Amino acid sequence: MTPGLQELSKLDRVVHEPARLMIMTVLYATGESDFLYVQRECGFTQGNLSSHLVRLEEAGYVRIDKTFKGKYPLTICRLTQTGREALESYFRAMRVVSSSLS
Amino acid sequence: MTPGLQELSKLDRVVHEPARLMIMTVLYATGESDFLYVQRECGFTQGNLSSHLVRLEEAGYVRIDKTFKGKYPLTICRLTQTGREALESYFRAMRVVSSSLS
Repeated sequence: MTPGLQELSKLDRVVHEPARLMIMTVLYATGESDFLYVQRECGFTQGNLSSHLVRLEEAGYVRIDKTFKGKYPLTICRLTQTGREALESYFRAMRVVSSSLS
Repeated sequence: MTPGLQELSKLDRVVHEPARLMIMTVLYATGESDFLYVQRECGFTQGNLSSHLVRLEEAGYVRIDKTFKGKYPLTICRLTQTGREALESYFRAMRVVSSSLS
């Protein structure tokens, strides 16, 4: 079999989707972020970000906590340990494929 | 901006799609391959492989030549130079994001 092909055929599609890859990368870097921060960083609409967060939450990769800062509602998003590991494992697979090319 | 996010937002979607990533990786490794070889390597149906090859051909990433081996038709697929560079550039971006995580 072509080197790297096995890794590609098993890629985690929840992570691979470009918008979710961006969201997870932001949350990986920040630890936790407000919904609006993620939205601004990624340049998504509210609806788009919401639907991807639901998908990530369903997969157990993201935890969402609704809270308040004074009287303003805050939606705090963070990667779960499973989410961090899923992203790390995704990029590990990408590195394997990448090195198989050269 | 979160490190790596710029690269992710500009990912080449033609390359990023998992099936096309597999096809391009096979063709990158082999130089050129018969349609049936690629189909077997990737485990795709004929229709699925055909439609992705059309997309890759339209992007200028793949060249398809129909020929014969004796009386058997052969469909030879190969990456164009543009295709090779697109795949290399894709994995370069992935490595940048990957290193930004650690």
